[in-house]
Amino acid sequence: MKTNAPTMKDVAREAGVALGTVSKVFNGITVGESYRIKVETAAQKLGYQVNQYARGLRASKTYTVAVILPGVDHPFFAALAQHLCTALAQRDHRMLLYVTASRPDMEQLCVKMVRQNRVDGIIGLTYNPLQIDDDLPFVSIDRSFAADVPCVASDNYSGGRIAAEKLLELGCQRLAFLRIGSANPSETDKRGDGFEMVCRTRNIHYDAIRLKDGEDLAQFKEFFRSHMKGGKIDIDGFFCSTDLLAWRIQQMLQELGIRVPEDVQIIGFDGIRRFGGESLYCSTIVQPVQKIAETSVDLLLDKDRANAPSLICLPVAYAPGGTTRE
Amino acid sequence: MKTNAPTMKDVAREAGVALGTVSKVFNGITVGESYRIKVETAAQKLGYQVNQYARGLRASKTYTVAVILPGVDHPFFAALAQHLCTALAQRDHRMLLYVTASRPDMEQLCVKMVRQNRVDGIIGLTYNPLQIDDDLPFVSIDRSFAADVPCVASDNYSGGRIAAEKLLELGCQRLAFLRIGSANPSETDKRGDGFEMVCRTRNIHYDAIRLKDGEDLAQFKEFFRSHMKGGKIDIDGFFCSTDLLAWRIQQMLQELGIRVPEDVQIIGFDGIRRFGGESLYCSTIVQPVQKIAETSVDLLLDKDRANAPSLICLPVAYAPGGTTRE
Repeated sequence: MKTNAPTMKDVAREAGVALGTVSKVFNGITVGESYRIKVETAAQKLGYQVNQYARGLRASKTYTVAVILPGVDHPFFAALAQHLCTALAQRDHRMLLYVTASRPDMEQLCVKMVRQNRVDGIIGLTYNPLQIDDDLPFVSIDRSFAADVPCVASDNYSGGRIAAEKLLELGCQRLAFLRIGSANPSETDKRGDGFEMVCRTRNIHYDAIRLKDGEDLAQFKEFFRSHMKGGKIDIDGFFCSTDLLAWRIQQMLQELGIRVPEDVQIIGFDGIRRFGGESLYCSTIVQPVQKIAETSVDLLLDKDRANAPSLICLPVAYAPGGTTRE
Repeated sequence: MKTNAPTMKDVAREAGVALGTVSKVFNGITVGESYRIKVETAAQKLGYQVNQYARGLRASKTYTVAVILPGVDHPFFAALAQHLCTALAQRDHRMLLYVTASRPDMEQLCVKMVRQNRVDGIIGLTYNPLQIDDDLPFVSIDRSFAADVPCVASDNYSGGRIAAEKLLELGCQRLAFLRIGSANPSETDKRGDGFEMVCRTRNIHYDAIRLKDGEDLAQFKEFFRSHMKGGKIDIDGFFCSTDLLAWRIQQMLQELGIRVPEDVQIIGFDGIRRFGGESLYCSTIVQPVQKIAETSVDLLLDKDRANAPSLICLPVAYAPGGTTRE
């Protein structure tokens, strides 16, 4: 550290105010407007940098939030990280990013590191419940842990409902819901629930196949074969739990000689775009990623957390992307 | 903070060692093996958590590294963030992520935040030079700033060379290099240099078109039209500066009725995979992203930084991805 760096005392002298006034300004405590301007002008002139570290120790506040994600190599998580980082920065907080890479050893290391390091709170999208201190604010994305841990998610149930309604509107008569994902319960399970509700209510014949991560995707192909006769398949509308699955399903169907969207129509879920901003991979239910990030940050930093809802579901929307007839 | 949390004194009492010994262990200073085990066993038994924050103040070390990226919504930056985070965690460091989102106001905010917060160093991939303290270790990715700031990059020049050689090996006779990117000089400029060197050396007729971010991509389409006669184009091999550009060029060519890879072959640069891990978008020169991340972390945390090279280029490799005849 430079020995000639200006101190708070130097700023007070330059501004012609008491040391306590300088301290108040740097710690965000209200002082008269003219004092605040004097202090900020002096600090700027001297090149004084607030030492966030020491400020954190004094105020018991670190202005640091830990964000735990399975990874940022998947485009949905990447977009989430991007928007969380921006939303935190706009509220003068910094983001410690922990990626678990879905590896148990990394998940463990990540939990250990969060506990070792003082942070003001955690925003996490995790597949396994984390052991965290009760007094550490925690906001969960996509997975409900407990009533006192607010969960922010897309309105997955409505998304499933919208997908079923859209397929029917586009002329489909026999539907199927396909899913592969974590074995742990999560908000995303509701995608299938909303879809099935529409089918049941409207007496539509449908199938639902749910696989767990690690299970063989070829089971979907066998299912398709069992529904084929003379090169045609008797299902004409698929709702897939993610865009990635929709993309894989589309390839499987084409290998079987089935045309998308002429013979069958497919709707995915997520709203992933090629290269992070180009065209959609498929017709899909778009998640409001930016809104999820901003809501999570607002909830975490909100002083009135005790009255926070336990689950906040944000609206999703259908977008055509080439795998439906509109 | 809990008042009943165990202190270093409690650990010393439990371990039956002096307080100084406990302090040494927690600060990574060498003590006898038996002492270290005693302290660690006692700390574990009492559930003692090292307060990284206070440890940072004492040791003038924060075990925190700031990573500055244009964004993590682009898949290359997302993969980089993922591998940097993992490499830092494996060396017991945490990652503060700053995304500039290529927005000037965010870039400014990000620089301000890094200066306000004590970190042990910065790893940055930035389009504009940052104002940083001379005494703060800095490793730059893809962009050389100064001799005392080590830069880590792919071997972009060799990548361009490999692309040209591969197109020629696959039968191409007339080549073109297409590029769009930042107006600021960067290591990635060498992609075109390596490509042109091969063309010149082997007397191959070639064109090179370089656009700056913001310029109209339609200029490429006009270039194609100017090279077309009777529905055919007289260029049969394209090297594009990124996979994203290769993907866009492929679409433009197909709109003009030109078949890829039958009529023309295309090689991109990056090695982007769909959904972060599926198939490649195009035949491409693959960047060693994980190696770039690990090398950057090693360089930043290396105590012998004074002897670090100013530029480290890591080997790239060709991978076929459907836009070439092999």
